[in-house]
Amino acid sequence: MIRQLQDIQVTVVGLGLMGGSLAAALRGQCPTVTGVARRAGTVDAALARSVVDRATVDLADGVSGADVVVLATPVRTILRQIAQIGPLLPGGCLLMDLGSTKTEIVNAMAHLPDHVQPLGGHPMCGKESSGLEAADPALYHNRTFVLCPLPRTSEAALALAGRLVSAIGARPLLLEPQRHDSLMATASHLPYLLACALVATAGTAAAADPTLCRLLASGFRDTSRLAGSDVTMMLDILLTNRHEVLKAVDNFRGQIDAIRRILETADGEAVHAALSAIRADRLRMLP
Amino acid sequence: MIRQLQDIQVTVVGLGLMGGSLAAALRGQCPTVTGVARRAGTVDAALARSVVDRATVDLADGVSGADVVVLATPVRTILRQIAQIGPLLPGGCLLMDLGSTKTEIVNAMAHLPDHVQPLGGHPMCGKESSGLEAADPALYHNRTFVLCPLPRTSEAALALAGRLVSAIGARPLLLEPQRHDSLMATASHLPYLLACALVATAGTAAAADPTLCRLLASGFRDTSRLAGSDVTMMLDILLTNRHEVLKAVDNFRGQIDAIRRILETADGEAVHAALSAIRADRLRMLP
Repeated sequence: MIRQLQDIQVTVVGLGLMGGSLAAALRGQCPTVTGVARRAGTVDAALARSVVDRATVDLADGVSGADVVVLATPVRTILRQIAQIGPLLPGGCLLMDLGSTKTEIVNAMAHLPDHVQPLGGHPMCGKESSGLEAADPALYHNRTFVLCPLPRTSEAALALAGRLVSAIGARPLLLEPQRHDSLMATASHLPYLLACALVATAGTAAAADPTLCRLLASGFRDTSRLAGSDVTMMLDILLTNRHEVLKAVDNFRGQIDAIRRILETADGEAVHAALSAIRADRLRMLP
Repeated sequence: MIRQLQDIQVTVVGLGLMGGSLAAALRGQCPTVTGVARRAGTVDAALARSVVDRATVDLADGVSGADVVVLATPVRTILRQIAQIGPLLPGGCLLMDLGSTKTEIVNAMAHLPDHVQPLGGHPMCGKESSGLEAADPALYHNRTFVLCPLPRTSEAALALAGRLVSAIGARPLLLEPQRHDSLMATASHLPYLLACALVATAGTAAAADPTLCRLLASGFRDTSRLAGSDVTMMLDILLTNRHEVLKAVDNFRGQIDAIRRILETADGEAVHAALSAIRADRLRMLP
């Protein structure tokens, strides 16, 4: 039986930027979108902003009757929720998540009771701001949405998830969890650490000469933007993808050392060639 | 005699993003804004877009009768222009520049003939796009505009430059050239090299697994944005500030190594403390 979106009840657990945006994007396409939040204030705000049809702080109440439950909390919270949510879920329920790392989450999903259909997920989107206030139903438009099925995930469950991803305007991409985490270490977790180390470098320089702060322009702002990310979210990502992140940092060190060596020679043509090749690479990667 | 903006003839040499924006911002505030470009096509485009009152490809013609000449070309072109422009300038003419490094430029300005009033300058602004097409009279609004007077620069010349900076909406900041270059190595040149090394790291990873490119989102885009900068401009900056840039890279390596060590311990509290302190630092530096 192929279930259509207009026949399914969806519950989103966690109403921050990602969960709030997902709920808002699905609302009206499914008969009921239920939100589960930790704080009563968030429940009230989600209802007031019409992000959900129904909201509660009670996980058991929120997932009762759900056909699809999406965990939209930080990675280590997702891991704790997977460990406890199984018995609460109706038979045949699809349990997805939006966590930024996938190996540990998908491994945890393998231990869910048999009546649950588990599926790892990770949409490639974010924003400078976080929280429900920043939620935006258009957040997922044209974004890649990684799906990591388990061997036990049924074709029907995967197809339903695909329709859900399409319904919010995103493009599904099937990927093995380890491969996802290895690629994300370079695509996302490394940039975060570089932004942090840049801010730390500038912080030390500014302590010696505070005039530095008057010279910070849009280049520094953009390059360091990720250092302003939510720390709990990033900590969970780093701790659950530590091995791949350390490898990405080492790869980066090899590259910055190579650029440093070329610059040290003061060979204008060699520096120009290296920088031009990198500029062209970026245009190819981000057309 | 204090000269007012409405009494002075300004010539801008180089009609890219910076020069074009400066000319457009001054136009109407001075009796004539003249532009000098290398290519006839740029002269035509500047006139068609009303960025200047008058434009020419002939440097001698362009600066004749000028009270203020602003060099708005890449740093090493500025150095060549300083070496040849002296005899072309009227007596008492203020010669400024917008070059991104200041020590070599101000040293070169010291050798200008006595009838010229030299002054180093560097506005803290930029844009993802470059060239005259991106020129914007509001580019300098609320930006810090560094001024590096020489011992020979008169009070009157410095005051005139201050009025010019205020007229385009920027805030003048007097700074020694060496101090400017040292601070800019951290504030701007280091972020550029980090963006380049990040792209090089991702390029290597994408060569092994092209799926990486589908996972690049706004975080990677922003952190790597500067790697798309104009290569000639950046090469000139790096070659004329090499010593300070190498020092900034070394300082950065110390910071990324420290963060790597903390992450390696997998001590969640220590990682959280380090990332939180950095996040707070960034908020202080970029309120």
